[in-house]
Amino acid sequence: MASRSIDTRYFESSEDQMTNLLDQIKDWQINHGFLLKLMPSEEDHSVLSYPVSVSVFPTAFPRTQFNRAIDLQKVYNELYSAIAEDEKWLYSVTKDLIPVEPLARALWGIYEETKKAGIVQNISAGIFRSDYMLHLNDNDESISVSPRSIFESSLKQVEFNAFSCAGGSHANRVADMHRYLTRIGEYDLGQEQRGKEKIEMKSLPPNNNIGGIASCLASAHAVYGSPKSRSAQQTAVLFIVQPNNFNIADERPIEYALWDRDEPVPAYRLNWGDILRDTSLTDSRQLLFHPPWMKSKSPVEISVVYMRAGYETHEYDVTGCQARLQLEKSTAIKCPSILSHISTFKKVQQALTAPGALERFLSAEKAAAVRATFVPVYPLDESPAGLHARKLATDPKESARFILKPSLEGGGHNIYGDEIPDFLSSVSHPEWSSYILMERIMPPILQNVLMGPAGVYEGEVVSELGIFGSTLWQKCTDSERRCEVLENSTAGWSFKTKYSEIDEMSVVKGYGCFDTPRLMED
Amino acid sequence: MASRSIDTRYFESSEDQMTNLLDQIKDWQINHGFLLKLMPSEEDHSVLSYPVSVSVFPTAFPRTQFNRAIDLQKVYNELYSAIAEDEKWLYSVTKDLIPVEPLARALWGIYEETKKAGIVQNISAGIFRSDYMLHLNDNDESISVSPRSIFESSLKQVEFNAFSCAGGSHANRVADMHRYLTRIGEYDLGQEQRGKEKIEMKSLPPNNNIGGIASCLASAHAVYGSPKSRSAQQTAVLFIVQPNNFNIADERPIEYALWDRDEPVPAYRLNWGDILRDTSLTDSRQLLFHPPWMKSKSPVEISVVYMRAGYETHEYDVTGCQARLQLEKSTAIKCPSILSHISTFKKVQQALTAPGALERFLSAEKAAAVRATFVPVYPLDESPAGLHARKLATDPKESARFILKPSLEGGGHNIYGDEIPDFLSSVSHPEWSSYILMERIMPPILQNVLMGPAGVYEGEVVSELGIFGSTLWQKCTDSERRCEVLENSTAGWSFKTKYSEIDEMSVVKGYGCFDTPRLMED
Repeated sequence: MASRSIDTRYFESSEDQMTNLLDQIKDWQINHGFLLKLMPSEEDHSVLSYPVSVSVFPTAFPRTQFNRAIDLQKVYNELYSAIAEDEKWLYSVTKDLIPVEPLARALWGIYEETKKAGIVQNISAGIFRSDYMLHLNDNDESISVSPRSIFESSLKQVEFNAFSCAGGSHANRVADMHRYLTRIGEYDLGQEQRGKEKIEMKSLPPNNNIGGIASCLASAHAVYGSPKSRSAQQTAVLFIVQPNNFNIADERPIEYALWDRDEPVPAYRLNWGDILRDTSLTDSRQLLFHPPWMKSKSPVEISVVYMRAGYETHEYDVTGCQARLQLEKSTAIKCPSILSHISTFKKVQQALTAPGALERFLSAEKAAAVRATFVPVYPLDESPAGLHARKLATDPKESARFILKPSLEGGGHNIYGDEIPDFLSSVSHPEWSSYILMERIMPPILQNVLMGPAGVYEGEVVSELGIFGSTLWQKCTDSERRCEVLENSTAGWSFKTKYSEIDEMSVVKGYGCFDTPRLMED
Repeated sequence: MASRSIDTRYFESSEDQMTNLLDQIKDWQINHGFLLKLMPSEEDHSVLSYPVSVSVFPTAFPRTQFNRAIDLQKVYNELYSAIAEDEKWLYSVTKDLIPVEPLARALWGIYEETKKAGIVQNISAGIFRSDYMLHLNDNDESISVSPRSIFESSLKQVEFNAFSCAGGSHANRVADMHRYLTRIGEYDLGQEQRGKEKIEMKSLPPNNNIGGIASCLASAHAVYGSPKSRSAQQTAVLFIVQPNNFNIADERPIEYALWDRDEPVPAYRLNWGDILRDTSLTDSRQLLFHPPWMKSKSPVEISVVYMRAGYETHEYDVTGCQARLQLEKSTAIKCPSILSHISTFKKVQQALTAPGALERFLSAEKAAAVRATFVPVYPLDESPAGLHARKLATDPKESARFILKPSLEGGGHNIYGDEIPDFLSSVSHPEWSSYILMERIMPPILQNVLMGPAGVYEGEVVSELGIFGSTLWQKCTDSERRCEVLENSTAGWSFKTKYSEIDEMSVVKGYGCFDTPRLMED
């Protein structure tokens, strides 16, 4: 395979240089709250925290592909807004999961109950993230790969996240950090190294995820308007969060940004497990929040429910389902709605690769632009395509080119290459259809130094670019169009880098680092 | 004594309320880098940190006294600029320390050598902090003290810091934090508590230490002008710091603020122990900094030396003295100069209480305003006043009203009340004159909840208000005036609160908390 090591080391650092740089990074991270909580240390009065894993240097990425991903985001926003209002299509492509996947069953069940009660809010918000890697089309292992290979690669989508997209604040901070380190000259070359290329400010794109995401929630809040319930004097955005979260530094900055706006938007947090205890529905289904820390105060009417929890199957026990139902039935604008949540299933990503599928939602031109970012994705069901994929997946040789992914949302739980046949033999046949088989993306491999709790090492790395999109749309009542997009923007980006020998990309799990693309001109 | 407990609890919090509030505080501190490094955990690639101790609620303070302290700062700036240019007077009041105090000996020695070489920079910068407590004049233990006592107290100076003043960034952050908690309603009372007074935004003064201190250094940098040395292409502010500092979150924000200005001011850090290795003097005594992490780069000419190290006696070994001499001899603007450093000795504070002393430096009106903040301070030498003080200090009954302080700068190392006689009997008589005896300030005692690594407890507390001043002055060559003040401003404030039963006030040592004054109208 062509994804081999390319020596693009632009920096030969002395020991002094490296020590100084690592000190600068740690201090910057502490001072800017670019940290994770060390949960076992948490007590009422104190808690330890440690720096989020980061790349020491920004990693090269072609500017044209970066811009292309940015430009594409509005089309992806349009696509996933439309999908979330196409219940029929969504059901047709995910219904096979219902018998085998408890999460699919739970979400469809909650949607059905909501529909039965009548949907009282036709506006939805979405904070999406589309993830890409560069892909070297050339699969010939024998050719030599030049440092310019990043310019010969194309942009391929890893996955599309429509629910509880994380990493926005960290990505914002890492850009600020690498730009700071560049500005103060930490990456400056010595005179004898002048021949080598200097990292310049203009090659490090600024990032505005925190402002962009907050702005999307603020727009939704504004569209909701003043309180409808007589008992509430105030409206607010409600963040639904997981309890004991060690990753609060990714969520809190968005709350702070909302409170810090010229017209402050109140924002509160509520644990997934406390929804039924601390919220109620009025007769006309306004969602009232009763902050437990100010019981005697009048309740707050929730304008926008921003989901940062509810993405794991185990969260949907009986109480969890009732809780989500309470949110869905309410007049609050959901970020995102339950159908939007379902649209993030891998099964949907796979279905969109079928001929003509994109054209259901997009103009031919836009569909083509989106399709160009797809790698082949197969179902693993009993359709002809599925049966073909089953052959590939169980063949020890063929399987190396693939990743087996559960059909649900989010990263993780993937099975890579060689391990697929053994894994599938441990899974009962009916369950196979809850997986999809995706061709592996073969990214150019670069050199960088990564640092995190496990140490600081130089090595071969690969990167993943995510683009954050934010959108607000209204379901259409006429049958012509599915929805009217009220707002559609690109909030910012995320860029993660990991050692190339590691398959999974998750910074907070310790498998990768937040990074900044160093945009290179061809 | 009148400093007894006054019940001013304005807040009866439920358990839920308190848990939520503590979570909000910890998360805010992590996200805003309001932290200390846990030094034993520091490695190249990672380091743990923990929240700085803070008060859970802002503590009441009379607005008039706060404003008075703010207004007085410019007078104090003027006073200490003038003192720093009055070598003769400074020498006369501190010369007795030279035989007994190694730090005094070292600093005067360095000054003498600098003078011999010729002083080549007649502009100095100062970042000062004047510390106050409220003092209840009434010493009658039997009278009952009303909650309004804070309005019956006067403002008394604890000490004046002219060197390496810390806490500015933390104080800035705690104000931001308490204001945030107020804005989001964390201190709102429930309906049944409406009778009690609500904490309002307008009672919590904003704080701008970080900007103010950076601005002072930037002004000095601008006054220095372009590089004079041919080998340097750039000028920069040099922070002289202690190595392995766990308190970087108090220093780094000032560097970041300098780099972040519309016209960025380069700022670098240099450990006290590395001054001789990494700096050099040109023939015309420009101070060149050779960053060890970019050896081959051209050196940086230092415009301003900002001292955050060099305040401890042990730092002045032979190498330490040479290092300080190198800085002093240079054309860099010192923040502060060595005479300014000497002006921060407690012995100077004591000498200023002598009749007529202030009038040497200030107009009668200004002198009176400053003197009103003094409590009696005695020398412990063999002068008549000193002999009187020795009697007081060795009398077990009388000594209770006093604090014995080493004549040098900085807090700590104080001996309180009853412990003075025993302590003095352990000290040889010639050394007695290196101490001063100060009347204890008797502050009103309030109620608050303090949190820090040791826990969170409600209790009786006392507070200390510090005002940060920043100034830039030029030594005058005519004999009429000592100096011309080029800039004179108040940067911001600091407010620290501790349990009343603890004598020493040092947040980073764990004895106190950063706090925000809740300004109360009489």
